[in-house]
Amino acid sequence: MDPFLQAAIEEAQTGLREGGIPIGSVLIYQGKILGRGHNKRVQQKSVTLHGEMDALENAGREPASVYRESILYTTLSPCPMCSGAILLYGIPKVIIGENQTFMGSEQLLREHGVEVIVENDPTCIQMMEEFIAKNPALWNEDIGEP
Amino acid sequence: MDPFLQAAIEEAQTGLREGGIPIGSVLIYQGKILGRGHNKRVQQKSVTLHGEMDALENAGREPASVYRESILYTTLSPCPMCSGAILLYGIPKVIIGENQTFMGSEQLLREHGVEVIVENDPTCIQMMEEFIAKNPALWNEDIGEP
Repeated sequence: MDPFLQAAIEEAQTGLREGGIPIGSVLIYQGKILGRGHNKRVQQKSVTLHGEMDALENAGREPASVYRESILYTTLSPCPMCSGAILLYGIPKVIIGENQTFMGSEQLLREHGVEVIVENDPTCIQMMEEFIAKNPALWNEDIGEP
Repeated sequence: MDPFLQAAIEEAQTGLREGGIPIGSVLIYQGKILGRGHNKRVQQKSVTLHGEMDALENAGREPASVYRESILYTTLSPCPMCSGAILLYGIPKVIIGENQTFMGSEQLLREHGVEVIVENDPTCIQMMEEFIAKNPALWNEDIGEP
């Protein structure tokens, strides 16, 4: 497996062990991990730190020149907020673990020229299927659904 | 002036006094301020806490039923990330201090049925014009521009 998708999955698994929502992400620049993160809704009571946002936050302040040569990996199709962050910073490529359990704003990303690759990785799918089945209310809260 | 826009401006002014970027926001639910915040790029080295995101974060975890009856005030037209957060949580109405110094994703919001009101308030415009003139590199970093 792509080692960066593996790193994103490991972040998701860390989140699950912490009692959180298992979505992880890594930001890659020049072949190295610049930032890694996972969903912090439960752990930090955060409504903004989805996995992708946490990876961006942990990467720290960077100029546009860095973002515009970076790749974002995420275990799950990015929601409107995370997709908006990708567009804000001009990240040109996103590699998505799966979009079977949740379909994010992939169309919006593509419309703005972002290269979007969906792996539909079985580990990612199983992780979210199990989590959603066990925690439907928490999951709905995370995606703004009633 | 609308007291909630005034509260958002006060948040922006607080950010400016802290040495930060003067953009503020408040989230309103049932006629009261549920959360208030301002851009924290400088203060917390945060790349995700734009003013609107900080207000959402400070409001804390809420169910969709709350967001869907809330109003978000922001001193500046919301960028793609903040607009994405508005769409994620289904906030139906956004009141914007100004969109003269920066045009965010207002069209995307309207396409998704969000009511968008732009006040073009002179205080908001002057605050950002002065800030951008004095801090062009910091401002460009905040909006992902080179």
